[in-house]
Amino acid sequence: MILPDGIFISFEGGEGSGKSTQIRLLEQWFRHRGRDVIVTREPGGSPGAEEIRALLLTGDSGRWDAVTEALLMFAARRDHVERTIRPALARGQVVLCDRFADSSVAYQGYGHGLGADFIAQLWHLAISGFKPDLTLMMDLPIETGLARAFARFADTKTAEDRFEKMELDFHQRLQQGFRDIAVAEPERCQIIDADGDIETVSGRVNAAVENFLAGRSR
Amino acid sequence: MILPDGIFISFEGGEGSGKSTQIRLLEQWFRHRGRDVIVTREPGGSPGAEEIRALLLTGDSGRWDAVTEALLMFAARRDHVERTIRPALARGQVVLCDRFADSSVAYQGYGHGLGADFIAQLWHLAISGFKPDLTLMMDLPIETGLARAFARFADTKTAEDRFEKMELDFHQRLQQGFRDIAVAEPERCQIIDADGDIETVSGRVNAAVENFLAGRSR
Repeated sequence: MILPDGIFISFEGGEGSGKSTQIRLLEQWFRHRGRDVIVTREPGGSPGAEEIRALLLTGDSGRWDAVTEALLMFAARRDHVERTIRPALARGQVVLCDRFADSSVAYQGYGHGLGADFIAQLWHLAISGFKPDLTLMMDLPIETGLARAFARFADTKTAEDRFEKMELDFHQRLQQGFRDIAVAEPERCQIIDADGDIETVSGRVNAAVENFLAGRSR
Repeated sequence: MILPDGIFISFEGGEGSGKSTQIRLLEQWFRHRGRDVIVTREPGGSPGAEEIRALLLTGDSGRWDAVTEALLMFAARRDHVERTIRPALARGQVVLCDRFADSSVAYQGYGHGLGADFIAQLWHLAISGFKPDLTLMMDLPIETGLARAFARFADTKTAEDRFEKMELDFHQRLQQGFRDIAVAEPERCQIIDADGDIETVSGRVNAAVENFLAGRSR
């Protein structure tokens, strides 16, 4: 039996941009086309990385400084890549991942001011620069995303929300980070307008994926 | 009140080389001279770093690959440096540390084959290359050290001993790593012959420290 090529697709974007919902819809889309899919997320996605996630996302916001946070993120990512993502791709699966290394560029690099070059060096050391085949960047006016995120937290308050409680200025830097990455790597990164109802945005995601697959089969 | 200059001294060396004992003796030596001393150790030494230590030193030996282990070590070290070591030095204290970044060079760089250059890059990213003022490398014939370590484990079996159960070949690479560091940085690193009774070795440690302090006051 010949395995299909594995495909690694990451979803990026600020809070409330609908990543989780769109990942579930894209999972179904691939399954309807006969593909084997795994859905994973960062930080986490492997047993070791989930333990590191627990260190990262609980406790108060000053628990780790930005550099320690970046090192822990890439330690978790290394484990996730080696134990979950690469083996899945080798089995010919489609891997849909909620956040990947671009989030470190945006959050620690732009948001916390470590700079994109610092994160790029760590990315190279930790996982030899391993990247998704396609990255879908869910782009949304910051106010819309935060309003959605706050509405969600009113219902389901969790211990993991510290990343989402940061100030507007921080979220503007995040958005700039994601947009700069998309400009620098237009082949890999597709900006998806995430302002719209679920079906509309899903249509945009599917179109971007079909376009990617068409380019790949050429 | 004028604070004395902080002094950061690390102890390195293989298993059974007597680091803990000699650190306690040197602590007393400094206290008798009126210095305020803190004793710390790696991985660990700050609340966050101790939590990372728990991830590193429990579980089976294949739990993390060498790169993930190095990233976790430097995440813990960053926290330790920022939260414990630098503040202590700023208060004019003497910091005695059981292992520091040279252990990453020896263990992950030489022992697990990542290479000294890989660790040097991580060292630079994580803590801007911050180093001890003096590093005492406890050097012992490998067989002697392992015999001492095994005798100890016969009494106090712990969950943290996986680093000590590795093969002879691995310990030879460690020793080579420590010796190469000492050759490359003779100003910072003093090799201490750790083969002898506690008092004899303590005399060698004190002589090395007195020599360092004399050079510093010049």
